[in-house]
Amino acid sequence: MKKLEDYIRTVPDFPKKGIMFRDITAVLQDKEGLKLAIDSMEKLIKDMGATVIAGAEARGFLLGMPVAYNLSLPFVPVRKKGKLPCETVTASYDLEYGSAEIEIDKTAIKKGDRVVLVDDLIATGGTMKAAISLIELLGGEVAGIAALIELVDLKGREVLAPYRVESIIRYSGD
Amino acid sequence: MKKLEDYIRTVPDFPKKGIMFRDITAVLQDKEGLKLAIDSMEKLIKDMGATVIAGAEARGFLLGMPVAYNLSLPFVPVRKKGKLPCETVTASYDLEYGSAEIEIDKTAIKKGDRVVLVDDLIATGGTMKAAISLIELLGGEVAGIAALIELVDLKGREVLAPYRVESIIRYSGD
Repeated sequence: MKKLEDYIRTVPDFPKKGIMFRDITAVLQDKEGLKLAIDSMEKLIKDMGATVIAGAEARGFLLGMPVAYNLSLPFVPVRKKGKLPCETVTASYDLEYGSAEIEIDKTAIKKGDRVVLVDDLIATGGTMKAAISLIELLGGEVAGIAALIELVDLKGREVLAPYRVESIIRYSGD
Repeated sequence: MKKLEDYIRTVPDFPKKGIMFRDITAVLQDKEGLKLAIDSMEKLIKDMGATVIAGAEARGFLLGMPVAYNLSLPFVPVRKKGKLPCETVTASYDLEYGSAEIEIDKTAIKKGDRVVLVDDLIATGGTMKAAISLIELLGGEVAGIAALIELVDLKGREVLAPYRVESIIRYSGD
């Protein structure tokens, strides 16, 4: 039987030379791959005590929403600046060149909410860290961060400490 | 009991004056709203004979993925240009000012696939039409288009004819 890692597509030199891009779209484009990905994420997350699932645009939506549905939880989209029509809180994070901003609906997280942040992949942890600051600004507690893939060499886990970080497949030495 | 439309947030004058923005994030941020949205979309789509679910970045991912999981189907993300690491096919569509391009993985759709395109909202139908052209270019058949919300006055349904268009909540006279 194929394992989850067998469905992941590795594309060398994308988006630039020297990067091994780990692509989950190939996983989701296969019905057994999709089921395995969602079931594995659900298993990873279900004991984290979440009352809310959050995920950052756009790939964080892919795994976050089905897991929220399966665990009967709400889903809070973390969006790029200007996309949400409501009052928001905003945080910026560094990109390789310059910076970008993400937002959450001000009313989406309440004091006492326990939020698990879901993404396909943990790299440097920069976006996740910005999302954490927004959750805490609104009085929520970050119960943990869960991703299908972790690029160990980029040390996102250290950036995200002391928060609980869970991943299913780890790559290093790329 | 609250109905699906009770969870939709209407924001006047977003993204610009005169527009009544119908926001599904408020639906998903409530656990009963999220369940109702996904169950309603699944019911809408399950007799359409899909073998593949596709959805356009980013809001099409929100409803498309859980429905694909629940119907045991694969999910093909339609992405903005430059996001997919593989060989793609590309189509452009008009925006209010200028145009934009979307892409699908060349290998994601095969001859004979029956694709249902899922989105949160049908407005002018422009992005959907571009996505249809990509699916057909790859030899797939469009089994239909399904959205939670349809803005009737924008006549997306006419732009998308003769394809089957299904929606749950219709707004007009905004």
